[in-house]
Amino acid sequence: MDIANIMARNTDHWSRAAAIRMLAMDGVAAANSGHTGMPMGMADVATVLFSKHLKFDASHPDWADRDRFVLSAGHGSMLLYALLYLTGYEDMTLEQVRDFRQLGAITAGHPEYGHAKGVETTTGPLGQGLGSAVGMAIAEESLRARFGSKIVDHRTWTFAGDGCLMEGVSQEVIALAGHLRLGHLTVFWDNNDITIDGKVSIADSTDQVKRFEASGWHVQSCDGHDPDAIDAAIEAAKSDPRPSMIACKTHIALGSSAQDTAKGHGALTDAKLISDTREVYGWEHAPFDIPSQIKCWWEEVGQRGNQARRDWEERVEALGTGKRKLFDRVMRSETPGKLASTLRALKKQISESQPKVATRKSSEMVLEVINPIMPEMLGGSADLTGSNNTLTPDLGVFSAENRKGRYIHYGIREHGMAAAMNGLAVHGGVRPYGGTFMCFADYARGAMRLSALMGAPAIYVMTHDSIGLGEDGPTHQPVEHLAMLRATPNLQVFRPADTVETIEAWELALTATDRPSVLALSRQGLPAMRLEHKSKNLSAQGAYVLREADGKRQAVLMATGSEVSIAVTARDILQAEGIGTRVVSMPCWELFEAQDEAYRRRVLPAGAVRVGIEAASRFGWDRWLLGERGREAKAGFVGMEGFGASAPAEELYAHFGITAEAVAEKVKALL
Amino acid sequence: MDIANIMARNTDHWSRAAAIRMLAMDGVAAANSGHTGMPMGMADVATVLFSKHLKFDASHPDWADRDRFVLSAGHGSMLLYALLYLTGYEDMTLEQVRDFRQLGAITAGHPEYGHAKGVETTTGPLGQGLGSAVGMAIAEESLRARFGSKIVDHRTWTFAGDGCLMEGVSQEVIALAGHLRLGHLTVFWDNNDITIDGKVSIADSTDQVKRFEASGWHVQSCDGHDPDAIDAAIEAAKSDPRPSMIACKTHIALGSSAQDTAKGHGALTDAKLISDTREVYGWEHAPFDIPSQIKCWWEEVGQRGNQARRDWEERVEALGTGKRKLFDRVMRSETPGKLASTLRALKKQISESQPKVATRKSSEMVLEVINPIMPEMLGGSADLTGSNNTLTPDLGVFSAENRKGRYIHYGIREHGMAAAMNGLAVHGGVRPYGGTFMCFADYARGAMRLSALMGAPAIYVMTHDSIGLGEDGPTHQPVEHLAMLRATPNLQVFRPADTVETIEAWELALTATDRPSVLALSRQGLPAMRLEHKSKNLSAQGAYVLREADGKRQAVLMATGSEVSIAVTARDILQAEGIGTRVVSMPCWELFEAQDEAYRRRVLPAGAVRVGIEAASRFGWDRWLLGERGREAKAGFVGMEGFGASAPAEELYAHFGITAEAVAEKVKALL
Repeated sequence: MDIANIMARNTDHWSRAAAIRMLAMDGVAAANSGHTGMPMGMADVATVLFSKHLKFDASHPDWADRDRFVLSAGHGSMLLYALLYLTGYEDMTLEQVRDFRQLGAITAGHPEYGHAKGVETTTGPLGQGLGSAVGMAIAEESLRARFGSKIVDHRTWTFAGDGCLMEGVSQEVIALAGHLRLGHLTVFWDNNDITIDGKVSIADSTDQVKRFEASGWHVQSCDGHDPDAIDAAIEAAKSDPRPSMIACKTHIALGSSAQDTAKGHGALTDAKLISDTREVYGWEHAPFDIPSQIKCWWEEVGQRGNQARRDWEERVEALGTGKRKLFDRVMRSETPGKLASTLRALKKQISESQPKVATRKSSEMVLEVINPIMPEMLGGSADLTGSNNTLTPDLGVFSAENRKGRYIHYGIREHGMAAAMNGLAVHGGVRPYGGTFMCFADYARGAMRLSALMGAPAIYVMTHDSIGLGEDGPTHQPVEHLAMLRATPNLQVFRPADTVETIEAWELALTATDRPSVLALSRQGLPAMRLEHKSKNLSAQGAYVLREADGKRQAVLMATGSEVSIAVTARDILQAEGIGTRVVSMPCWELFEAQDEAYRRRVLPAGAVRVGIEAASRFGWDRWLLGERGREAKAGFVGMEGFGASAPAEELYAHFGITAEAVAEKVKALL
Repeated sequence: MDIANIMARNTDHWSRAAAIRMLAMDGVAAANSGHTGMPMGMADVATVLFSKHLKFDASHPDWADRDRFVLSAGHGSMLLYALLYLTGYEDMTLEQVRDFRQLGAITAGHPEYGHAKGVETTTGPLGQGLGSAVGMAIAEESLRARFGSKIVDHRTWTFAGDGCLMEGVSQEVIALAGHLRLGHLTVFWDNNDITIDGKVSIADSTDQVKRFEASGWHVQSCDGHDPDAIDAAIEAAKSDPRPSMIACKTHIALGSSAQDTAKGHGALTDAKLISDTREVYGWEHAPFDIPSQIKCWWEEVGQRGNQARRDWEERVEALGTGKRKLFDRVMRSETPGKLASTLRALKKQISESQPKVATRKSSEMVLEVINPIMPEMLGGSADLTGSNNTLTPDLGVFSAENRKGRYIHYGIREHGMAAAMNGLAVHGGVRPYGGTFMCFADYARGAMRLSALMGAPAIYVMTHDSIGLGEDGPTHQPVEHLAMLRATPNLQVFRPADTVETIEAWELALTATDRPSVLALSRQGLPAMRLEHKSKNLSAQGAYVLREADGKRQAVLMATGSEVSIAVTARDILQAEGIGTRVVSMPCWELFEAQDEAYRRRVLPAGAVRVGIEAASRFGWDRWLLGERGREAKAGFVGMEGFGASAPAEELYAHFGITAEAVAEKVKALL
């Protein structure tokens, strides 16, 4: 289909879609960077989707039952900003569009969650949007099952490019979505044959239609510039119970001299190219100038869902009080009032019974009391349920047949799990947690970083958090992972020492609604460290004095997780020799860093010898050993210097010298 | 097919395969951990493959033209150890098999490259073996094209489980292998319907046959317990020009009471279960006792390739001297003699011309002189060729049509690229490097950790290494990635400051044959810092004095990469105010840590104020700021405290306060 034909056949449609194309072109040209070609290629699909199908109300971007639109090919961000501006989102002013990619503007280079309304999730790292969309579609099914289709009945729509589909994470979530029959999910594949390096064919020969079909999807192909064909495909997608993929044959940078080329993928900034394209489009308006007739039409599109939204509000109003309050609470990501008392009761009981259990087991004990009072909890594991201890009896399994189930068998798909959890978290109404071995944070890392960047409160249950996992060996033993996670901004990393600290960590993870949390949990059994019940959440300060020195304080031992008990035993040895030794448990560095100087000084005063103990890399520990009034000559570390090994856990601790005796010796050498 | 039928139909085959099964059962039982079910399920396929098809000589495990066997489902490690023991690999003694998963044994929990001969690559993290295998198959094609099929003509065989196929990385490498038509690659899918959490069907409904076909593979299905069917499928795979996938229908934990169950996946240690299974097998021998007739048969299998190996050695001997020497050199991963002088000449020229270029461009300048003299260089990029500057004109593109090409368009597949690079590196004969944006180390992380664990000398060219990439924004701006990479054991992380340091980094990366390297390179242009030619590789010491203080040394500025020039400008400001300031460039922390105390003290003496400058997280920097004779009260850091933002690079540096002025102020505040 040539462009003249496209224009002639649908003149009204053409000018409306052209408004998107021109804004994208103008925005990128003004920024002198960005990606023009994708918005130009997908403008027709976007116009049909937004004007005829997408359920939204631009005046109420946070309407809970709105459809979600995810631009997985996030580099085409101007497409989304143009749509938000045209349809009348209040915050998306023309000035913001003009300031595309400038400091302080909400129009970031890639769509950033929390910047502009209507940006449902952060995209850019390819494939992540697709994963988020799958999570959103799961959230919708789950909420619909719980609250009924009068309250929850919306769809998730995604634009994905070749890059999204080449990334491995796409396969994980495509397979998951097909398996779960997420019929309210539709993916539009921007099938333009072009990537940055050239034609797709230089790197890929995948039959994407067949690939999606292999995962149980409903698949169609259409001309991505023919509005009628697009509309028909969307209608068919809506009436099929499977997730749908619509392969939209498009021309990247349509109508420009860079059309169908790798150049067209990037920033088209050449003045002549732009003016030539204006001419081809028959667009006689100044940059950023959208004729009022077109703008009005788009604003009507933005208000199309207004009545539906009002009707929905009435239906919510008509819900029984209990159900309405519950709906409001979960949509606000608020924890229930009784969470605190429930956890306090468990803490008290545990402080008395003092069980020696692995913290992964402790975590299960916590979930057993949380899940029944938080119906929004949506758990899961990447095929390590029995090891991560993530499934409690009340949950039931979420499946194509049982939408009320609250546990997801994610399969051996850590990255897909994390990406879907992002979608679950930003969708709202559900609180996702997912388990895997901590070493496989490596696989999930791309999505975990996005959790942190978005402030999406996903909870990562990462068990087998050190050489303590034993015989599986170095491929499965985290060493540098705590450093990797702690170095990530806006991520809370908890490494609880026993069951009480695990309860506290869960409480902090659940009440943090603006950032994700990692719970690093042991495989091996750990003795109780907190022997006296305190209703206060001591872990909330990040680090605290677990055992005070008897007599003059000569040493401070700092440890986390499974090494706290080693520190306490080392203290016993040292105290027996008359060396006053304090033990500081540090379950969450980020929270300790956030404490005021006075508190930090109380916990880590100057003067004493300091030894850090963690079955992991020292990397990052110098902050506490040498900083915070520490001194190099009086500081030491007992931990890992390289990769682990394959042997029973106790032997590994001895082999790598992570023992109470070694700690005591280290202290004495430093005194 | 029931087990009695299997046994009756092929009695000889049965007892040979049973030897594998029994060793796996005995090894896991002795270790009281591991995975019995997979070896029991795949023993028939392994027996046919090793006895009839695999080209190898157990007495010469390092024979360059041997077939490669990769156990991607690495948890079934006992399958491999059993095969190596049975076929007579010298180092795989019965004692080693008995010591499965014990400290110091070569029989680690998962197969570890470098421990036992015959373990071609480390596996365990699922999907990685598949990626390695794809890399090996590429290496073979490349070497065959260069040295001829008389010297190089072998195959790569892989066992993959459901977990391997669910991991996203599998899709990346399956698509790549299909696109490249790697006809010497065969994947056996252990199609047993079972994962840890239960039946595969609880998490996956993928039609794997269709999925592989969608990627251009030759696909067959067969009964994985029928030796004739397996043999026929292998024959067909060998004669097809496409990569082959053989879906082998198997029973996990065949013949035990745990057959076809999730329990059968793990460690079968129950004494009754084991004795019952012995009975079912008709196996009357003691644990670890293999009847000599069976052992002899297997040892003959191990020697089957002996003559072929001798013939091959003669053919190598008959090569022209030049070609033979080249073959020997590249297989030993030795750099050519003239590398040093070539790089020295470039360094001299650059020290004189002092170009202001981005270090990604510097890297291209280095590759332009390296690639022509190192035909073993096999470059590539994950669809960012023009940004990573990884393609030099001499390379040509490796494709299905052009096996002599030395550049791989990996597609938008960072993880697959890294996993394949591991296979390229451990195969030998080629030196892989691959480019992407540094932020997408996140995606590649699973495979990069394996490079480090294996000591595989892959070279990661990671450009756009900070907020200096500008408008693409925080999704693309690394902040914590240097910390993540530096925390990883056995990984060299270079962040060169200018072209001369980039030359030095490449030299160090290429001459390190026992560990991978990362080159963190700037997007933005950087002024030359090294203005005087030194033939010595100063970066080899990890850190060195770039600018000495004039007058009394009051401050030491430490910086890497793009921030070194900021440090030098800050020094100018400080010196103008009479504050003697040294600038230390730290291109590689790992190498500096490895220097002796005396050298480190010379570079970082006590006393002066220290300020670290890096457009990244401070995480890890305290080692140098507070340690190494530093003091908290006299140390500061100028860098990033959170995620970046979307704006032009210079504005971001100003916005985040990473400027020479800020550094000078920080120094003065600390004096």
